[in-house]
Amino acid sequence: MPVPPTPAAQFEGGCAFADGAYVPLSEAKISLFDWGFTRSDATYDVATTWRGAFFRLDAHMDRFFASLDKMRLAIPYTRAELREVLHGCVRAAGLQDAYVAMVCTRGVPPRGARDPRMAQNRFYAYALPYVWIASPEKQAAGIDLHISSRQRIGPASVDPTVKNYHWIDLVQSLFDAYDLGRDTSCVVDADGCVTEGPGFNVFAVKDGVVHTADRGVLEGISRRTVIELCERMGIPLRIAPLPVELVRGADEVFLSSSGGGVLPIGKVDGQTLVGFPGPVTRRLQDGYWALHEEAAYRDPVSYP
Amino acid sequence: MPVPPTPAAQFEGGCAFADGAYVPLSEAKISLFDWGFTRSDATYDVATTWRGAFFRLDAHMDRFFASLDKMRLAIPYTRAELREVLHGCVRAAGLQDAYVAMVCTRGVPPRGARDPRMAQNRFYAYALPYVWIASPEKQAAGIDLHISSRQRIGPASVDPTVKNYHWIDLVQSLFDAYDLGRDTSCVVDADGCVTEGPGFNVFAVKDGVVHTADRGVLEGISRRTVIELCERMGIPLRIAPLPVELVRGADEVFLSSSGGGVLPIGKVDGQTLVGFPGPVTRRLQDGYWALHEEAAYRDPVSYP
Repeated sequence: MPVPPTPAAQFEGGCAFADGAYVPLSEAKISLFDWGFTRSDATYDVATTWRGAFFRLDAHMDRFFASLDKMRLAIPYTRAELREVLHGCVRAAGLQDAYVAMVCTRGVPPRGARDPRMAQNRFYAYALPYVWIASPEKQAAGIDLHISSRQRIGPASVDPTVKNYHWIDLVQSLFDAYDLGRDTSCVVDADGCVTEGPGFNVFAVKDGVVHTADRGVLEGISRRTVIELCERMGIPLRIAPLPVELVRGADEVFLSSSGGGVLPIGKVDGQTLVGFPGPVTRRLQDGYWALHEEAAYRDPVSYP
Repeated sequence: MPVPPTPAAQFEGGCAFADGAYVPLSEAKISLFDWGFTRSDATYDVATTWRGAFFRLDAHMDRFFASLDKMRLAIPYTRAELREVLHGCVRAAGLQDAYVAMVCTRGVPPRGARDPRMAQNRFYAYALPYVWIASPEKQAAGIDLHISSRQRIGPASVDPTVKNYHWIDLVQSLFDAYDLGRDTSCVVDADGCVTEGPGFNVFAVKDGVVHTADRGVLEGISRRTVIELCERMGIPLRIAPLPVELVRGADEVFLSSSGGGVLPIGKVDGQTLVGFPGPVTRRLQDGYWALHEEAAYRDPVSYP
């Protein structure tokens, strides 16, 4: 294992780990022939640091290793080494609040071969400044969520519990949203129920009950955090198919994401929600950030 | 436009065109942050050259430009310039029989932005030695095709007529095939009908009629060539949903792909096909290669 570098000008703005070495972001590249690109045959996970500590890093590493197994991918690092690399990227970049990705690609099979078993899997990681799905200003103004009629790629095709880069449906739904003057989007399942959006799960609050989808969605760590917060706080929760009408007619709607935690929605399909800004969303938002101070969820970065 | 280089040691084994310059394959890389990787937000096409001439290059360029439009992607080259770059890659690599890819990715939005409209799209191309889905020896021995119960990503999620890199379903079905000792695989649609496999369309011949799927599949140029050959040769053709039973009970089964043209299947799910090697497959195979000599389909490469 290489020794994590100390912060330097070359790691201004972030630090990556590629092909076994810490490198500046500009050198973080993959081969055009890696199946991780030419077949999107890859999995990844994103953790965050906040005020100098990882939040629920174990949960993210658990899911990453589970995704690797399901995809028949492997990385040449132990769990302790993976943790060391992720810490190393944050440390080198000198970031307090960071977006930290771990990625594994199938790699490049020998010339002419089309057998994925013959490829050496590749591992990458990087730390960037913390990414917000929407800025605090935008959140306060009221994010307008477009419910697209596009369907999320189905579980019979791609296991949604494996965090993956199959996002054409999500990106195209974003274009639809922008065409309509809205801010972000979510897609539905084959039954027309709301699933997820680009990088987030969706929650609706109606008559004091928090609703979120039970299937066809990423089992987000932030989603799990919200679920656990509801249990702790005694907020009624229903995990079941999430009809579009429930979201459109909700008192409050919010998103969960590693890119900002709990994010309030101000409008759905251009219609202002009666309960915005909402008390349940606010409680969960406060709870989300308060959890960041609890020792059990913190893994502090050791800066030089 | 850069002048295509002449063949040199650095282009031994292939030549790529990346960020506006001709480069050796080892330098053909994309940023780890390009949405073409992190969201598989990209489209591509693959043409071939055979004995020094492109085959149906116009059809491939037509489809590539149509895919770009549907994906809201753009390349900074005209059709004539695209042709020049593709020819340039083949010429520099000194290849007579080549696999020639053209690729466009979303690119990298500004730091922290999650708006695909803010990204500058990237264009890549490369020429490699001609790729066979299966070697001529394997074809003669009889390729064993596994019909997976995995579903191809549905048209309501990703437009299958846009050639895309969303292949987790296809790659996982390959692993299933290998587990069963089979050679390759195809996947089904939500109704259980056969759609396509990793890089090919599927055809079944029963009682002299050629059958292939009408929906949920890539509109392959090789598939179109087979359809046109059937029309020319007066072979009855039915383009309709392709039930698994029809493929399992077929007299002959074959694949169409730019990676070998018309490829005979010897076994389906481990069972030898009664009609292998089959006369209809053989006629279409001969017709496929004969078309390569017709001027209307040829675009000869000008080697130095």
